[in-house]
Amino acid sequence: MPRFRITVEYDGGPFCGWQAQANGPSVQATIEAALAALTGETPRLHGAGRTDAGVHATAQVAHFDLARDWGARALRDGLNAHLRPFPVVVIEAAGTAADFHARFSATGRRYLYRIVNRPVPLALELERAWWAKRPLDADAMHEAAQRLVGHHDFTTFRSVDCQSASPVKTLDRLDVGRRGDTIEVTAAARSFLHNQVRSIVGSLKLVGQGKWSADRLAEALAARDRRACGPVAPAHGLYLVGVSYGPSDDQSVDGEA
Amino acid sequence: MPRFRITVEYDGGPFCGWQAQANGPSVQATIEAALAALTGETPRLHGAGRTDAGVHATAQVAHFDLARDWGARALRDGLNAHLRPFPVVVIEAAGTAADFHARFSATGRRYLYRIVNRPVPLALELERAWWAKRPLDADAMHEAAQRLVGHHDFTTFRSVDCQSASPVKTLDRLDVGRRGDTIEVTAAARSFLHNQVRSIVGSLKLVGQGKWSADRLAEALAARDRRACGPVAPAHGLYLVGVSYGPSDDQSVDGEA
Repeated sequence: MPRFRITVEYDGGPFCGWQAQANGPSVQATIEAALAALTGETPRLHGAGRTDAGVHATAQVAHFDLARDWGARALRDGLNAHLRPFPVVVIEAAGTAADFHARFSATGRRYLYRIVNRPVPLALELERAWWAKRPLDADAMHEAAQRLVGHHDFTTFRSVDCQSASPVKTLDRLDVGRRGDTIEVTAAARSFLHNQVRSIVGSLKLVGQGKWSADRLAEALAARDRRACGPVAPAHGLYLVGVSYGPSDDQSVDGEA
Repeated sequence: MPRFRITVEYDGGPFCGWQAQANGPSVQATIEAALAALTGETPRLHGAGRTDAGVHATAQVAHFDLARDWGARALRDGLNAHLRPFPVVVIEAAGTAADFHARFSATGRRYLYRIVNRPVPLALELERAWWAKRPLDADAMHEAAQRLVGHHDFTTFRSVDCQSASPVKTLDRLDVGRRGDTIEVTAAARSFLHNQVRSIVGSLKLVGQGKWSADRLAEALAARDRRACGPVAPAHGLYLVGVSYGPSDDQSVDGEA
């Protein structure tokens, strides 16, 4: 049975999240419906990251099996035709190894969090970024962020609903930079805890406002206590922007199918 | 009677255009309603550019008169509070000279047209850019665009509904550049004809596809015939990004009120 891998962009706004749930349309179910309409088969779709309601993606990765073989371009364009009018687009589709697993083969995930920092609310960026009214010191945020990089118990920065077996993760990168009014936080790790990036960004905002020092952020981490976390940043500023795989699964996420 | 000037950002999607009309909510009427709710007065709002349905703005400029004086920040923040939940934001508000007129004092207008050029449709940029599926040659578009710069009869590139007294305008700048998948067309002039930018962009796309040469574009201009125009580009890729005024009206459009 041929296995296929797709890279997907979506606006998380209209969805209850990636994963199929009872309380609304999911990205996963939307793509599964397009797959069924296109192929006549009903494969299960497995995603690399189970993004929450409102979280966007520029490069989510997923896999599925079909009985029939498909050309990469026919699969991509056929799925996109059936995905309309939903804001979900297959950027790339390709056949992949039978043992490739979008979630379990992933060796890295990268998230972007966008803050627009200006005195007035958002019109064009509404639901695409978090509005921060008061001036934020992005340099101070970046410096403090480095205290979270590395192998730590991230209990403080995980949702109480997190189902991960262990709160210990290795955060490979946490960069904060400003471009004009926009502050971008980039986080990279092999895997993340539930709400980890939004919890970290909410606490980094307190650093940017001067309410928390870098030491205070490090103390919050060391507390290993959810109550030490700052207010969690909203979902609509978060983007899953890349998933990486080992050399044997190597395939450019941005490449042309 | 004090006169005020505001700089406004909006998502044109939900509106019938800038100007108050019978067929739906306009940006102008939306701001006038917020002004009435905030001040108890019912001033007429005059905008610099009468953008069409679906056209966006990052820096539209408008003026109005009030009987009572207002601090710049109180006016800006009060209007923004009353503008919710509409995707219209007052970026800046300030008192201005009694003879300042947002439309007639303007010495320059700048528009940006965004094309996303990739094989798959848009999800995150839906209604924020024009999707062009086939590869476009942005360098060829830029080179051809220079044939339109200068003082010309733009009859070919004006809507049949255009109410301007003369089709003769001076196009100061028409630049086409690519950044990744995005092609940006920037147009600057003292004033524009109705649908001029969208008509030009639609014809430039034919150049980018290799269907039209630069000579063919110049011939279309010289024809002074609406039937010589390419298909008009859709409204949702167009942004009014700046209005300039003479030294006596000088005030930074991007500045903090």
